[in-house]
Parts: sequence; C-alpha cells; structure tokens
Amino acid sequence: MAHCTDQMLQKIWLQITQEVRQHCIDEPMLASFLHATVLKHSNLCDALSYVLASLLDCPVLPSIAVREIINEAYVADHKIVRSAALDIVAFYERDPVCDQYSTPFLFLKGFHAMQTYRVAHWLWKQNRRPLARFLQSRSSSVFTVDIHPGAVIGSGILLDHAHGLVIGETAVVEDDVSILHGVTLGGTGKETGDRHPKIRRGVLLSTGATVLGNVEVGEDARVAAGSVVLEPVPAHVTVAGIPAHIVSSKPVSNGSTHDCPAMNMDQTLHHKKT
Amino acid sequence: MAHCTDQMLQKIWLQITQEVRQHCIDEPMLASFLHATVLKHSNLCDALSYVLASLLDCPVLPSIAVREIINEAYVADHKIVRSAALDIVAFYERDPVCDQYSTPFLFLKGFHAMQTYRVAHWLWKQNRRPLARFLQSRSSSVFTVDIHPGAVIGSGILLDHAHGLVIGETAVVEDDVSILHGVTLGGTGKETGDRHPKIRRGVLLSTGATVLGNVEVGEDARVAAGSVVLEPVPAHVTVAGIPAHIVSSKPVSNGSTHDCPAMNMDQTLHHKKT
Amino acid sequence: MAHCTDQMLQKIWLQITQEVRQHCIDEPMLASFLHATVLKHSNLCDALSYVLASLLDCPVLPSIAVREIINEAYVADHKIVRSAALDIVAFYERDPVCDQYSTPFLFLKGFHAMQTYRVAHWLWKQNRRPLARFLQSRSSSVFTVDIHPGAVIGSGILLDHAHGLVIGETAVVEDDVSILHGVTLGGTGKETGDRHPKIRRGVLLSTGATVLGNVEVGEDARVAAGSVVLEPVPAHVTVAGIPAHIVSSKPVSNGSTHDCPAMNMDQTLHHKKT
Amino acid sequence: MAHCTDQMLQKIWLQITQEVRQHCIDEPMLASFLHATVLKHSNLCDALSYVLASLLDCPVLPSIAVREIINEAYVADHKIVRSAALDIVAFYERDPVCDQYSTPFLFLKGFHAMQTYRVAHWLWKQNRRPLARFLQSRSSSVFTVDIHPGAVIGSGILLDHAHGLVIGETAVVEDDVSILHGVTLGGTGKETGDRHPKIRRGVLLSTGATVLGNVEVGEDARVAAGSVVLEPVPAHVTVAGIPAHIVSSKPVSNGSTHDCPAMNMDQTLHHKKT
Amino acid sequence: MAHCTDQMLQKIWLQITQEVRQHCIDEPMLASFLHATVLKHSNLCDALSYVLASLLDCPVLPSIAVREIINEAYVADHKIVRSAALDIVAFYERDPVCDQYSTPFLFLKGFHAMQTYRVAHWLWKQNRRPLARFLQSRSSSVFTVDIHPGAVIGSGILLDHAHGLVIGETAVVEDDVSILHGVTLGGTGKETGDRHPKIRRGVLLSTGATVLGNVEVGEDARVAAGSVVLEPVPAHVTVAGIPAHIVSSKPVSNGSTHDCPAMNMDQTLHHKKT
Amino acid sequence: MAHCTDQMLQKIWLQITQEVRQHCIDEPMLASFLHATVLKHSNLCDALSYVLASLLDCPVLPSIAVREIINEAYVADHKIVRSAALDIVAFYERDPVCDQYSTPFLFLKGFHAMQTYRVAHWLWKQNRRPLARFLQSRSSSVFTVDIHPGAVIGSGILLDHAHGLVIGETAVVEDDVSILHGVTLGGTGKETGDRHPKIRRGVLLSTGATVLGNVEVGEDARVAAGSVVLEPVPAHVTVAGIPAHIVSSKPVSNGSTHDCPAMNMDQTLHHKKT
Repeated sequence: MAHCTDQMLQKIWLQITQEVRQHCIDEPMLASFLHATVLKHSNLCDALSYVLASLLDCPVLPSIAVREIINEAYVADHKIVRSAALDIVAFYERDPVCDQYSTPFLFLKGFHAMQTYRVAHWLWKQNRRPLARFLQSRSSSVFTVDIHPGAVIGSGILLDHAHGLVIGETAVVEDDVSILHGVTLGGTGKETGDRHPKIRRGVLLSTGATVLGNVEVGEDARVAAGSVVLEPVPAHVTVAGIPAHIVSSKPVSNGSTHDCPAMNMDQTLHHKKT
Repeated sequence: MAHCTDQMLQKIWLQITQEVRQHCIDEPMLASFLHATVLKHSNLCDALSYVLASLLDCPVLPSIAVREIINEAYVADHKIVRSAALDIVAFYERDPVCDQYSTPFLFLKGFHAMQTYRVAHWLWKQNRRPLARFLQSRSSSVFTVDIHPGAVIGSGILLDHAHGLVIGETAVVEDDVSILHGVTLGGTGKETGDRHPKIRRGVLLSTGATVLGNVEVGEDARVAAGSVVLEPVPAHVTVAGIPAHIVSSKPVSNGSTHDCPAMNMDQTLHHKKT
Repeated sequence: MAHCTDQMLQKIWLQITQEVRQHCIDEPMLASFLHATVLKHSNLCDALSYVLASLLDCPVLPSIAVREIINEAYVADHKIVRSAALDIVAFYERDPVCDQYSTPFLFLKGFHAMQTYRVAHWLWKQNRRPLARFLQSRSSSVFTVDIHPGAVIGSGILLDHAHGLVIGETAVVEDDVSILHGVTLGGTGKETGDRHPKIRRGVLLSTGATVLGNVEVGEDARVAAGSVVLEPVPAHVTVAGIPAHIVSSKPVSNGSTHDCPAMNMDQTLHHKKT
Repeated sequence: MAHCTDQMLQKIWLQITQEVRQHCIDEPMLASFLHATVLKHSNLCDALSYVLASLLDCPVLPSIAVREIINEAYVADHKIVRSAALDIVAFYERDPVCDQYSTPFLFLKGFHAMQTYRVAHWLWKQNRRPLARFLQSRSSSVFTVDIHPGAVIGSGILLDHAHGLVIGETAVVEDDVSILHGVTLGGTGKETGDRHPKIRRGVLLSTGATVLGNVEVGEDARVAAGSVVLEPVPAHVTVAGIPAHIVSSKPVSNGSTHDCPAMNMDQTLHHKKT
Repeated sequence: MAHCTDQMLQKIWLQITQEVRQHCIDEPMLASFLHATVLKHSNLCDALSYVLASLLDCPVLPSIAVREIINEAYVADHKIVRSAALDIVAFYERDPVCDQYSTPFLFLKGFHAMQTYRVAHWLWKQNRRPLARFLQSRSSSVFTVDIHPGAVIGSGILLDHAHGLVIGETAVVEDDVSILHGVTLGGTGKETGDRHPKIRRGVLLSTGATVLGNVEVGEDARVAAGSVVLEPVPAHVTVAGIPAHIVSSKPVSNGSTHDCPAMNMDQTLHHKKT
Repeated sequence: MAHCTDQMLQKIWLQITQEVRQHCIDEPMLASFLHATVLKHSNLCDALSYVLASLLDCPVLPSIAVREIINEAYVADHKIVRSAALDIVAFYERDPVCDQYSTPFLFLKGFHAMQTYRVAHWLWKQNRRPLARFLQSRSSSVFTVDIHPGAVIGSGILLDHAHGLVIGETAVVEDDVSILHGVTLGGTGKETGDRHPKIRRGVLLSTGATVLGNVEVGEDARVAAGSVVLEPVPAHVTVAGIPAHIVSSKPVSNGSTHDCPAMNMDQTLHHKKT
C-alpha cells in the first residue's frame, strides 16, 4: 500500500472536498475555516500547507512564513504529500471514529504532527538544523509529539490520539505502522550513534508502549499496551509486560481476514497471565 | 452526591466569589482576569462560559463566538452546569491541593477539559458533529485531553492533572469517578459499535491506567497505576498489573471512614508481589 | 557539580552566544528571534527571562508583564539563574541530541518548564499563591508539565522530552537527577501533609516511571521505564515492574566509567524476567 | 425620524439578516464571520455587541470582556440600540454607496465608532470614567474617531468615512446630523466648563469642517468643506470659509424635495467667491 | 512612464533585495522580518503579497487566507504588480525621504494602502463585493485610507503620508498623480451615478485638498493645500482657496526642469493673497 | 519650563501612582492593566517603556523586544524621560479634559506617539535607520502620527487628539509648543536638504494648520485652524487663512494672565473677515 498514485491522490482530494462541502452546510460557524483550509484549494498539497501553517503559527514564525517553508519542502520532494495521503488512508481504514478522509486532515493532531515531522525531516536533510529543531519544538508544544527530525519514518502511519509521543533521532519506522498515544521509541544511555528502535512494516505499538535502544521490532509484530521492550521482537509475535516477553506467536486475527496488527488494531492480549 | 440542588449551586458560587475577592487583593496582577472571569458575573453559568471561551479562543473560533455556543448548550440543558458544580466539589473534596472551590475553576486543565467535553457532547447529541469534533480537537491540543464527544460521562468527575487522557466514543463513565493523568479508556480493533469500557460509580483509575475494550469496571473498584485492564473488573476490588488481575478484594480503607476509592484517592496497592 | 561559579555562568553564556551567532548565519528566518532572545542580551539572566516570558505570553499575563515577575525573582534570588545554568549543563552532558548549550535554552520544553517552576516556586515562598498557581497552570497547558510550586527541586535537573510530567506539592528532588517524560511523583490518598516522594541525588527516573507516596528513592538509584514505585528504594539499586522491585543491586555501568544513573542515562534493565 | 419603534427595529434586523445570508453564498471566505456576527443572533442588540466587541478586542480588554460591558449598557438603556438602528437608517438613506442596511453594520468604521461612543457615554454617566476613557482611547486608535464620552449625541447620525474626527466633552449633536470625515467640534482655550459647539438637528458638517467654542450651529444649517466656524451659525444657512461666513441663506435644495442638508448631503457651495 | 517593462520590474526587485540585505546586517532585530518579507522570495509579486497579507492579518481573514486572495488577483491580472512597481518608482523619485526602493515597500502605509486598493478593485470587478468591501474596511482602519473599490486609479501614484484619505466610488485618478495626506475625492449629495472627481495625469493634490463632485482636474494641474475644489480645474493651472480659484496659470517650475506638479511636488503657492 | 528636575520627575510619578491606585478601586476590570502599567514600577522610566511597548507590540517586533530598545534609549539618554515628563505636564496644564497626570500617560495617543518619536529619534541619531523607520511606520499606523525620526522636537509638547499629524525630516519644534490634530509641518518640492518648518517656543498650531517649507513660525505665534502657512510668521502674531496672513499682532489674551498661545490654547481668531 506504500505507494500513492496520482489517481489515488486525486480521489482522496475529491473525497475530502465533498465531505467538507457538506460540513459547510451543516455548520456555518466553521464555513470560512473549511473554505480557507480546503475548498479554496485545488489540490491536497496546497490545502495541507495551509492547515499546517495555521496550526504552527506563532510570533517567531508566522503562518505565512511557515507556509512558504512547507511549500518549499513539498516542491522539492513530491513524496512528502503522497506520504501524507497514505497517512490519511491509514486513519480512515484503521480508526473506527474516522469515517471520513477529512477527519484526520481537519481535526486530528496525530496527523498534523506527522506532517510537521515530514517537513522538519526534509529540512534536517538539507542541513537546516535550527529550523528543523524549531519545528520539532513547536510540534512538542502544540501536539505533544516530539519526533526528532533525523528519524526516518515511512508512509501510511497512524498516530492515534498522539498524546505524549517520543521518537528518537536514529529510530526507523517503516511503512504501515500504527502507533497509539504515549509511545516512546527512545535511546538509552548517553552515547551518540545508532541507538534507537527499528520498527518494521505492519507493526502495532499499543498505548504507552516503550521501546528502548537499537532493537528491532519485526514485521507484523505487536507490542501490547504498557509494555517496555528492551530486546528485539521477532516478526509476527505479540510481546507484553515489563520487560516485554512473547505472549503469542502469531498476531490475534480477531475475526478479521487481515493478519496485520497495524491494520486490525487489536490491542487485546490473550497472553498467559504472569 | 450526583444531584446538585439550586442551593448547592448557589453556595459554591458564593464561595468562589469570596475566594476570588481575596485573590484580587493578594495579587493585583491578576485582578482584571479574576474580575472578568468571576466577579463580573452573577452566577456560575456565566462565569463558566467565560473562562472556557477564553481558554478555547483561536482564530477559527474566537472566544466571543465559542462563548455563544457554550451558552446555547447551558440554556438548552441546565444539567451541564450542575455537573460542572459537582465536578468542582469532586476536586475540592478529593484533591488535597484543592483547598478552594475556585482552584479547579480558575487553574486546573482537568476541570476545563471536562467542561469542554460536556459542551461537545451536547453538540454531538444535536448532530452538530463538525463543531463537536472541533471542540474535541481543541481540547486535545490545549489540555491534552482527548474525549470523544459521543462518550457518556456523569457528574462529580475528578480529572487530576489530566495530561494525556483518552476516552473513546462508546465509553461510559458514571458519577463520582476519579481519573488520574495518562488514563486511557480505549477501544481495540477497528470494528465500530459498542467497543469501549464502562466505568461504574465510585471507581478510581490511577495514573496511567489503561482499560481496553467493552469491559466493565465495577462499582467502587480500583485500577492501580500503570495497569492494563483487558477483562471485566468486579465491583469493590483492586486490580493491578499488565494485564491487570485482582490484588485485593476490597478497597483499601486507608484509615479513612470512606470506602469509595474515587473518594479516598488511595493509589497505593498492597497487592501480592508477582 | 551542584554549584555554579561566576566563571561557569560566564562560560556557558559565551558558548550560547557563539552557537547562536552561527545559527543566525545558517538560518536567517530565525535571526530576529535569535537576536532578540540571545544576542541582544549581555548575560544569561536577561536572556532567560526573555525566552520564558515569550513562551508564557497570554492575554491574562502578557509577556512584558510576566518578564517583570521573572526578573523580580532573579534579582531576589540569584541562585535561580545558577540552577538554570546547571540544568543547561545537565542537558548538554546527558542528552546525546544536545550537542550545544543553546539547544535546551532555545528549543526544549523540559528546560523551559523547569525554569517556569523555579519562578513559581519563588512566588510560592513569597506567599503569592494565586500567581504561582497561574504559572503552574500555564506550564501544564504550554509544556504539559505540572509541577506544584511548593515542590523543592535542586539543580542540574534533566527533564528529557517532558511530556506529561507530574510532581506533587511535598515532593523533593535533589541535585543531579534525570527525569524522562511521563514520570509522576504523586501523592496517594486525600490527606494533606508530607505525602510525596523524595528523590535523592543522582537518581534516574525512566520513561513513564510512577512513584507514589512519601517514599524515598535513594542516591544513585534507578527506576526503570514503566515502573510503579510504592515503597522506598535503596540507594544504588535498580527497581522495575508494577509494583517495582529490585532487579539489580548496583546500577548498570554500561561500559561507562561513570556509575551515576542520572549521568549515564542507561534505561536498559537486565533484570530477571518475572 | 428620531424615534425607532419595535417594528422598525425588527424590520431593519430582518433586512440585515437577508442581506447577510446572500453574502454568505456569494463569498464563503466570509461565511463564518457573517454567521458569527449576524446570523447566529436573534436580534440587533446581540449582533451589535458582538461586532463591536470583536473590533475593540485587545489584551487589556479582550472581546468577551468588552462584550459584557456593552451588553450591560444595552440592558440598562434600551435607547442605545434604537439609536444605533437609526444610525443604520441614516447611512442607508444618505450615503449613496450604502445600498444595504448591513453595509454600515459590517464594514463602516464611522458606524462602529459612533456605537463605541454610545457605550462609553453610558459608562461616563455611571461615573465609570477610567473605562469610558479607555473606550475613547481605543476608538481613537482603531477608528481615528476621538469623541469624548461626556459629549451628548442624538440618533440618526451619519459619520461618513470617519477619519480624524474630534468631538469635545461639552459638545451637543442633536438628532439627524450628518458629519463627514476630518470634522472637529473643538473647544478653545484651556478653561473648563461648557465650551464646545452645539449642533442642532438636520445640520450637515462637510469634510474637514472645524467648529470651535461654545457656538450654536442652527437647525438645518450647513458648514461647507474646510470651513472654520468661530461664531454662531443661524438655522437654514450655509457657511463657508476661514473664518466661515454665510454664503447662502437657505440650503441648496439640489433638485431634491428634501431641504434638510443632513439628508441631501449636498456639500457643494455656490457661494459668492471671495 | 506608465508602462513597466519586465526589465524595469526585475531591476526594481534586484535593487530592493540589495538594500534589504544591507538592512539585515545593520539591524539584526529586523532580520527575520526582512528575510521573510523580501529575501525569501524570488520576485516582487511574491514579496508584495507577503507584506500586504501580514499587514491586513486579522481573525476574520488571517494572513495566509488573505495572501491567497492577493495571489489570485496577481495571477489573474499581471498589471497589478506592474502598477505597484511604478508606485514604488513614484515614491523613490518624488519623495525626498525615500532614497531607497525598499522604503515604501517595507514602511510606508500610503504604498500599502494603494496596493490593498488594487486587490480590492480586482475583486470588485469580479463582482466579489463583500470581500472587496471587507478589504476597503480593513484599509480604512489599518491605514486610514478609504478608497472605494469601484474607483479607477492608474499607475505611478504617490500617496504621501496617507493619513485620512478618501476616494469615492466613481472617481478616476490617471497615471502619475501625487496625492498628499488628508485629500478627499468626494461626492456630493445622495444621488448615485457618476458623481466623483476625475483627476488627470500629472496632477498634484496637496495636503488636505478636497475635490467634490464630478469635476475634472486637468492634466498637470495643481490643487494647493487646504483647497476645496467644487468646479473643474483646467490643465496646467494651480488652484487654491475655499472655494478654490486659479492662482497661477502655469505650474511653478521651482527651478526644476520638470514642469509636472506631481513630479516636482512643489506645494508652495505664490498666489495672490485674497 | 523646559527643564525637569529630579524632584519634578518624582512628584509627577507619585501623582500618577496615586491617581491610578484610585482607578483600580473604581474599575477593577482595568486593575491588572493599571497594575502592570503603573503600580508594578518604581519610576516613570520603567512604566513608560512598559506602556509604549504594549502599544507598539506586533509580530515583527513583539512587546518584550521593543521594550528593550526603549530601555536602551532611556539608559543612553536620560533626557528622553524628562522630556516625556514635561509632555505630561503640558497635557495636564493646557488640556481641560486632562485633570490628571495619568490621563495622557494611560489614554492619549498624542502622548504615546510623541514618546515613540523620541525613541525613534534616538535610534536615528545612532544611525539605526531601519529600526527608526520601523517605529515611525508603526506610529503612523497605530496613532496616525507620522513624525520623521530625523525631526528635532523639544520638551513640553502637547499633541492634542493627534489624528493625522505629519512632521517632516528637517522640521524643528522647540519647547512648549502645542499642536492640535491634523497639523502638517511639511516640505515642498522634491529637493532634499533643510526644507521643513522651524517652530519656535510657545507657538500654538491649531487644528488642521499646514506649514510648508523651511519657514519660521516665531516665538509665541499662533497659526489658526485650517490655515496654510507658506511664508515666515513673526513672533507674537496670529496668522490665519489660505494662504495665512497676519490677523492679529499680539496673541489674544482671552482673559488669561498668560500670553503664550501654546499655554492658553485659544484657537479663536477675532481676525478681520476677508
């Protein structure tokens, strides 16, 4: 799913505009906001830079200045907006309260924080570190999401609720991962170098999961709520506990036809009681 | 305790104004704020809509616009303000640093977030979903409290410290519950339908407690700090651990004459070490 | 390390100005901010009151008003700024992504929240309680750090990431402690009096650690991620689990020559699996 | 014309709402503003306090606080809103670019400044002088209209363009007067006491007209553009020049059936060249 | 002079960027403003929409929304920016304190107000009247310049100081006109239709000049300070007085080789004393 | 009168604080403003930089940054604050509605604009021209007072009402001058060099007076409302008209014992009708 075609991008955009047009009718108190944020634009790219800039606005970097930086990133690297589109799909397909594409786009700080990271990451790669740091700092205050701009994060990421997230500098998060609030992908110790977790495709990191150090969480693995992971997690297993250990050797399918934990979002653990 | 009489409402309001009048003398730097927020008003209802509107102010929905929405809710459903009054009493009676009724009203984001939810919930019931969603989104950013406006929450609720709270769409929280920061009442899986916890009267949910799925936490039960609850919790017990299990079959009375965990706020667990 | 000489203060300040001068060249979009915040000033004290006031700015207490309060505290108690300097050193020495003294000063909300506490604490001691409460409330909203102004906290404190922190009224945190995000030093029960943890010098409180009640965490001890501490922790040990128990009788040295957990920041626990 | 019946008030309000509904369709970028300012309200009174409060908003007196003061005035003295309604009619009937009742209400600072004066005047009469002065000061900055709150001004006043207006403390302006921009009704000398002009019903004060001292400008008189009036002006004449002298003994009817200068707004003077 | 070639546009832009680069060095407190406003952009068009949007920013129409409207106008009608460039040249060549192209661009409200009119005029022609009216209203408050969006104004216009300007709906101002502060091009009477002055090329309207009614002020004519013009003014003459009469039959050359009053800005009148 | 002793400074300051203390009691809605602006400070200097910074606040130069610039000026040149004190006295003694020293300080934009000029002038002399220009630009927008920072202006200046003022680069205004709104001290022509009026001590420039070119207005002279002065005005005379001519050879004493026009503020001209 990690490629977003022009057609898909267009379809998502059309869907958002249709939903928002209905919102304007239902709630005229929000009409100008909806119009300025969505309906005034002809594509997702322009709308996205608008909504992010509005949210990040502050005297140090007013919205019209931050919007130019975002647009600069989007022009330089078209994949950023395609990743955003895949994130929208991730919210829509996996979060039961997201029955519209427009919901994460307009209302969810997990989506906004992830898109802020994507711009900060581009700045970091351009070696514009103070500005990347400034965006990280704004995201940490505005969204309580603290993602180091050096981290490498794929597409189709669901940041659900998104309170209190921390993702460290050398962390890697592959495509199609779902991350709930309170999750930490942290380092340990004060050495520099590659020291943060590597989260493979399809992983579900449940509420409050903490993964520390340069450990791999394998494809389609699941880290249960409140767990503390200090050692590598094989693919396709569920780990739980402090410290986390394997409680199930294949992800719970939960009646779903889909076995990917990031997709079915099943946080329940029927692991053996300790 | 879950009924607030006119007399009680009046008494709370008078007490707040007396406390605030003293604050004005003690700290003239805050006098205009205190005057505009409290002393200028003749009842709790007007003061409450003022303080909430000030806190939720943003360009999309300026304070004078959001205040009208709040007033609309308060006029339509008098019980909202009575619930707020009972929440004030809950802070006052259960939180040792709240030695005044005015403290939660003026300073505590847990109180402000709960009152924002009450308005968003009323909008949700009126089918004004984009606006309800917008308030939820503001609460999530401003207070780091993400309560779905569809959740059903009673009166006399203490949200202590209130960082990083999540309460899902079909959750139910009955009267006289105490909830510390970092608590999650979450769903699991991506199916829609009734999928969130039911928290009965008198429950204490300690710091960082996570309850997932449509499970009941019975009356006067206690969920210890950091626990992850995946299965129903009987009334009057204490559960702890990941996953949580029963560690005590009656709430610790802690020298208090009151056995209700939400009331005595005892987070200590003298459970058997695992 | 808990004393900051004039010379050290001067050296830190010079280093910050040199770093910031380079930032101005690298990122002219931030030049005015950097100039106004740092380069315009002749010492750390003035710069610090400027940066804090900017961040705490709100209509109730505009930045120029809050700056005067901060300056008042700094003039009355010179040690506040010296503690801030030691906090900067703590970030620089212990946090691998802090390779400059200017990073916490400019960008890290953990540093900003700790300095806000220091001013609120001074106000509290002057018996200016409503204003101290107001600053606590602002810190809770702006930084998601809720430190009661009555708490007593030393110098050289690292608040890393700083989401969702809670420190209660009678808590004591000695010098040279490192605290990750999601940590709670909470009370339990609703009695007043001395009821919060005492954290001794050199302690490391890892991500999401919860310490409840008037218990002591001894010198150079380590509380592992996600642990819930309900009983005293001896010096030099590592505790982990819910409830926490001793998993190692001396702190993991991790190849470092330094045995102090707060310094080496080693969050890994090689404790026995339960 | 100086009485506004309930029926007239209702008719004006209905007309405004109809016009604004069309604006919402024509220009969705303004829909939320129009909705919050007009359509959300059920009467002119509520809408007027909303629009004024938005315009006068500043950190010292935020919009929700100033709105309460305005509402207080409107409740205490119903005539204030009726005078506002008559002002709207004055703009509509006399200003050719005002082809809608909603134009002054939404867009014209002359209308907004006059309504600010009406509230400041009420405060002045209540002996709340600092607040009255503050509103005067705000009006002077925001609208460049400096009307002393002690002045006595009737209904049906057109302040066209409204740049740089000054009306002194003891000035009287009766009903149905039209005043263009740059007009001064000033005192002279530094004595206190009754020292400002008395402008009788139906007068037209053209662009830049200056009237100084306690002199009367008689009913239906006309002061030509740029004139300086230092002596009484009889009723029904036109004065012009520096100092002003009578150039016409009856107002120019200009093909209109109406002889009142304030109504026909004829600024032309066919006076004898000097 | 009223045509602006691509080359001239480019030259002006380059000159502005060079001047501003020097300002950044001279005054680092303004560096971010100068960078965001000028140096971040690659052409005058982008910089102009940025600076205008910043100045017109308000909650009803935030800067990022108003900037999109401005850009829409600039894309649809390339001449607007060329007119702006000619206005910059007009300030530079005629105003002695403007020794840099960047001065009007950055600092002069007369220039900003004229460019706001140009956008409002484009909206008016697109029949987007409420938005055009809103910009007029903002200009009237922010710059005290009230130009009806229906007026037709050429290029190379100097609005010097720009306090208290009024230009009516059917006014025409041709290219290369200089207008000082306090000038009115007003209607008279309340009839609609073509009722405002027509100002021909090269005219100088001095401080406080008032021209009323559909009268023509001929090419290279001069209206002296404080004059009130009620009748047509032939080309090449100077008029003065209330009402204005011809005081000189050819513009005072004032030692300059240039006979155009708008160019030499000579406000002196050596007219016969009356 | 143009010297302000320490004693006088102290007396004015004490008087202001006493007046303001009473305002706090009378109008608690303004108490925080009054406290932060006046009562929090120990001298006029600190209070003045506070009130100016609040008024000039904008995203480009936030209040805490502009306050530092003002303080820098006040420290470098003590006479600036003494001049401000003499301006306060000028308002108090000459303006009948100013019955308190605190009135201009708190509420009058003519006073605020003059103090902004004083800081801009200091910057201009330091060759910090972009910043001086920026303050001029802010003053022109916020107060509609456009004083070139190069102008040289004495102490004891009353700017009454202050709408639409213009004072050019090479103008000189000596001590104890009173200037009403709409006054212009302008240049003429586009040559550079010394080209603006010189206003001697004790002069009264009435409403809308325009003085153009390098002409002297002699000591204790009076320029009547609406006059246009193009030639030198001898000391002790009154001039009026367009162009202005002498109408009285000694200032009208108006029953006052004081012959200085700036002091008695008599704008009346009993000059011979033309």
